[in-house]
Amino acid sequence: MKQSLGLSERLFPCPVMVVGTYDDAGEPNVATLAWGGTASSGPQSVSIAVRPSRYTYEALQRTKAFTVNLPSVEHAAAVDYFGLVSGRDEHKLEVTKLTAVHGEFVDAPYIAEFPFCMECEVTHVIDLGLHSLFIGAVRDIKVDERFLDNQGVFQWDQAKILTFDSNLRAYRAPGEVVGEAFSIGKKFIAT
Amino acid sequence: MKQSLGLSERLFPCPVMVVGTYDDAGEPNVATLAWGGTASSGPQSVSIAVRPSRYTYEALQRTKAFTVNLPSVEHAAAVDYFGLVSGRDEHKLEVTKLTAVHGEFVDAPYIAEFPFCMECEVTHVIDLGLHSLFIGAVRDIKVDERFLDNQGVFQWDQAKILTFDSNLRAYRAPGEVVGEAFSIGKKFIAT
Repeated sequence: MKQSLGLSERLFPCPVMVVGTYDDAGEPNVATLAWGGTASSGPQSVSIAVRPSRYTYEALQRTKAFTVNLPSVEHAAAVDYFGLVSGRDEHKLEVTKLTAVHGEFVDAPYIAEFPFCMECEVTHVIDLGLHSLFIGAVRDIKVDERFLDNQGVFQWDQAKILTFDSNLRAYRAPGEVVGEAFSIGKKFIAT
Repeated sequence: MKQSLGLSERLFPCPVMVVGTYDDAGEPNVATLAWGGTASSGPQSVSIAVRPSRYTYEALQRTKAFTVNLPSVEHAAAVDYFGLVSGRDEHKLEVTKLTAVHGEFVDAPYIAEFPFCMECEVTHVIDLGLHSLFIGAVRDIKVDERFLDNQGVFQWDQAKILTFDSNLRAYRAPGEVVGEAFSIGKKFIAT
């Protein structure tokens, strides 16, 4: 039996995206977001949803650039802290002893210690109400080479990239493989 | 050491979203998508990225409504099939013996057997290139009551909601909890 839960924006799973920007003093800032996702395969684009009250919002409007840094399990406490305080009040990377590196292609900092970093240039801003959706065209991906397989594919499960569980208010590790995509559905195709 | 992988739109993890629409004959159709995510908390909104060549695209333009159905591990083969063939050629729900129910609030069908269904009304369409991003305001969530805890919270991990692994081309189950959100980061806050 289905039960209505009314209104909610929550989808499952959610990514844990640490968004890097430069503030108006040129200081690197990071904020943890879970609302957003892939937006297009060409030009390769992603979306991030940011509240206008956020310090990151001011930076995005000014620099039109951001990074998306995906953390490992080992960074869970730092990532959680990034979501608890504002860059207006604290220098989050100094506090967590993480390293900001200036983007190679955009005016935004990425986090050296995280296994996956994406450099993005803002192409669209859609004001949706509580959040504005920023679309970023990807300019480069950088990954920790320890997690590349012999075909050069990033093994995000080996990197233990975090998932956000909005209902349990928890972080999760990647789960086990339960089926091969573009394959297990073929049994329904008449031959 | 970081290695550049050039351009990619892939984020980790990705949801497995089965999008339900009515075609111009009024027949229910479903398509599996992984690009999209939560877009705003007010009005509660989500995004889905759809290629203009998709059968679903035509339906979205006409009805301005869709559902997002999240599958369990047990539906993995059906979901994979939904992404392999077009609703122009096959009646996907009949083939997989799944049940379309007319949305209570929008003109789109949801899948009775799936543990989570979201009814959405299209509010924005942003043409990004290979994909158009459709923003949908949520009109209702329906879940399988077997997966509600005693506070009425949907336990998506108990429902074994699928994750898409775009790099390994696989479906994954929810992973283990590795940290409490809005909590484990407090150790970095000076008291």
